[in-house]
Amino acid sequence: FTIIVLPGDGIGPEVTHAARQVLDAAAAQTGIEITYKERLIGGCAIDRLGTALDEATLAECQQADAVLLGAVGGPKWDDPTAPVRPEQGLLALRKGLGVFANLRPVRVYPVLVDASPLRPERLQGVDLLVVRELTGGLYFGEPKGRLRQDGREGAVDSLVYWDYEIERVVDLAFQLAAGRRGRLASVDKANVLETSRLWRQIVQQVSRRYPQVQVEHVLVDTAAMRLVTSPAAFDVIVTENMFGDILTDEAAVLAGSMGLLPSASLGGRGGGLYEPIHGSAPDIAGQGIANPLGAILSAALLLRYALKQEKAARAVEQAVERALQEGCRTRDLGGSLSTRAMTDAVLDRLS
Amino acid sequence: FTIIVLPGDGIGPEVTHAARQVLDAAAAQTGIEITYKERLIGGCAIDRLGTALDEATLAECQQADAVLLGAVGGPKWDDPTAPVRPEQGLLALRKGLGVFANLRPVRVYPVLVDASPLRPERLQGVDLLVVRELTGGLYFGEPKGRLRQDGREGAVDSLVYWDYEIERVVDLAFQLAAGRRGRLASVDKANVLETSRLWRQIVQQVSRRYPQVQVEHVLVDTAAMRLVTSPAAFDVIVTENMFGDILTDEAAVLAGSMGLLPSASLGGRGGGLYEPIHGSAPDIAGQGIANPLGAILSAALLLRYALKQEKAARAVEQAVERALQEGCRTRDLGGSLSTRAMTDAVLDRLS
Ligand SMILES: CC(C)[C@H](C(=O)O)[C@@H](O)C(=O)O
Ligand SMILES: CC(C)[C@H](C(=O)O)[C@@H](O)C(=O)O
Repeated sequence: FTIIVLPGDGIGPEVTHAARQVLDAAAAQTGIEITYKERLIGGCAIDRLGTALDEATLAECQQADAVLLGAVGGPKWDDPTAPVRPEQGLLALRKGLGVFANLRPVRVYPVLVDASPLRPERLQGVDLLVVRELTGGLYFGEPKGRLRQDGREGAVDSLVYWDYEIERVVDLAFQLAAGRRGRLASVDKANVLETSRLWRQIVQQVSRRYPQVQVEHVLVDTAAMRLVTSPAAFDVIVTENMFGDILTDEAAVLAGSMGLLPSASLGGRGGGLYEPIHGSAPDIAGQGIANPLGAILSAALLLRYALKQEKAARAVEQAVERALQEGCRTRDLGGSLSTRAMTDAVLDRLS
Repeated sequence: FTIIVLPGDGIGPEVTHAARQVLDAAAAQTGIEITYKERLIGGCAIDRLGTALDEATLAECQQADAVLLGAVGGPKWDDPTAPVRPEQGLLALRKGLGVFANLRPVRVYPVLVDASPLRPERLQGVDLLVVRELTGGLYFGEPKGRLRQDGREGAVDSLVYWDYEIERVVDLAFQLAAGRRGRLASVDKANVLETSRLWRQIVQQVSRRYPQVQVEHVLVDTAAMRLVTSPAAFDVIVTENMFGDILTDEAAVLAGSMGLLPSASLGGRGGGLYEPIHGSAPDIAGQGIANPLGAILSAALLLRYALKQEKAARAVEQAVERALQEGCRTRDLGGSLSTRAMTDAVLDRLS
């Protein structure tokens, strides 16, 4: 298997290094062979190549069995009006790979309940999966740009969805729900948005193919509330790109630290894109103290979805769980383990 | 003073009735005179007039000194694809009044800390004000509608902002921040949206007029996280319409119950629109058990902003606070008081 590794900026290189070590150990155990190619993306790519993602790298990513990404961005490239920006690399990569479904599982580990801002009784049984549409909506819709009229300046972003874009991500969400607790919450703003009314209509159509899944339509404002008041009531959530961006970050904090959470972006022809949901964390970059678990758990998702090594994926997830249960904690979780020590703790328990 | 009362649907009539009683008591104490006119909006207007807000009512609202609204909507009119829908009345009212700034204060009463899903230590000192842009963005932008191409069905909503629309709401937010703790968080998604880049630019321009206010730009996904992890760090938050819709509902649950929270929509020429932020709560409508405090505190905002009766506004707010301190609780807060009993509790303490 060939995996393109895009460490990116900030703590990206540190956490992807950790994830590679875990992948290597899992590969050795399973008897598979992995070849890695490290390439540039984000701020470091801008500095060295003048673009946040060059075409050759994108082409290699399209050919590879999977792409493992760290994080992009940092204060050095933080001007949102600059012509070239790190997150353009990430957006071009998502679009170029056609990974239309971003899966963000949020589990609350019982041993980490005290790290969460929520009261413990609200956290019991929280195990949800957000499926976020990733290649449509406001992120990519046209027209997008500046407007000028009568000496006034304006701007426009376009929220556009086509039926097939909605159908494919919704269908995947139904499949995933059918394999879990059988409940799907489709989040939209159908009382205001035309795209949401189309979204709801298609969810209704697709739902006929999955009679075993109980589907509920939830307005995005209500969903933002319920994620805090009763997160355990959610199983799978499916929503469009921008709502998904907001709700997944909100959901992520339930787990106690963003540093823990992985994601997989699936769809298109390739094996998908795997990345922790945390950012580049420039404040702690280079210090060797970042939590590697988000990246390591992303590697587990890579084993599951791209390499079809379910057993190896489970083994990694169980090793992480055991390490946490046995008290291993990086600083974001109130402990003092370094990135390397936490990675070693996982490797020790991977057998 | 003339106030148009739009009770609307569900618990709307019950809570606006409570708010009127409190307004009457405040008026008697202050020596002002208030004339009320009750009109239809939302589902009940659709049933009786065929439209969610008729032109005559809108015209009266535009003439009045203030508009007090209950809530709109309910299962009877819940089909988002119906040609006439309750929330159209609300949107037409906001647009017709030109109330571009929706103020949603979120205070956590120390006596209610146990009703919140957050841990008590996270709630200390939470006292924030969200200023949501209310007459622009995805709610109203054109084009908005269905698309058709090559046998495919699509839909579009347009996120459009003009410089003056941003400037007026941001300016108001700076004014409000200057009168509070002097901190303003402007929430956008400037790494993805062109409208957000314009938004950020204008915030920077306006900030020069308010050197005493410390301004910070926060990405909407980060803001959704921080509202849960460190809500006390916020003073005033200003943001565009859709982000504001999501973030205010999320912020509202911190207080322990949506039923508690008021809002004021200001701008344009009139005296503004005042409504609790909760919905029509069809499940408890007509039972006399709804929490009237959101509506009563909206009446306090009406006294403050529309009638310029700061003393009376404070008196109402203090009466509410005292009632809560002395243990008065409706069911949403774990108590057993009826709407009427809670209203009486406030009236008793208004002196
Ligand atoms: C960096 C940014 C463009 C990105 C997004 O908004 O999708 C990030 O917030 C994420 O959620 O992966
Ligand atoms: C009813 C709906 C149109 C409305 C909105 O989205 O503005 C509501 O959610 C609100 O926040 O007042």
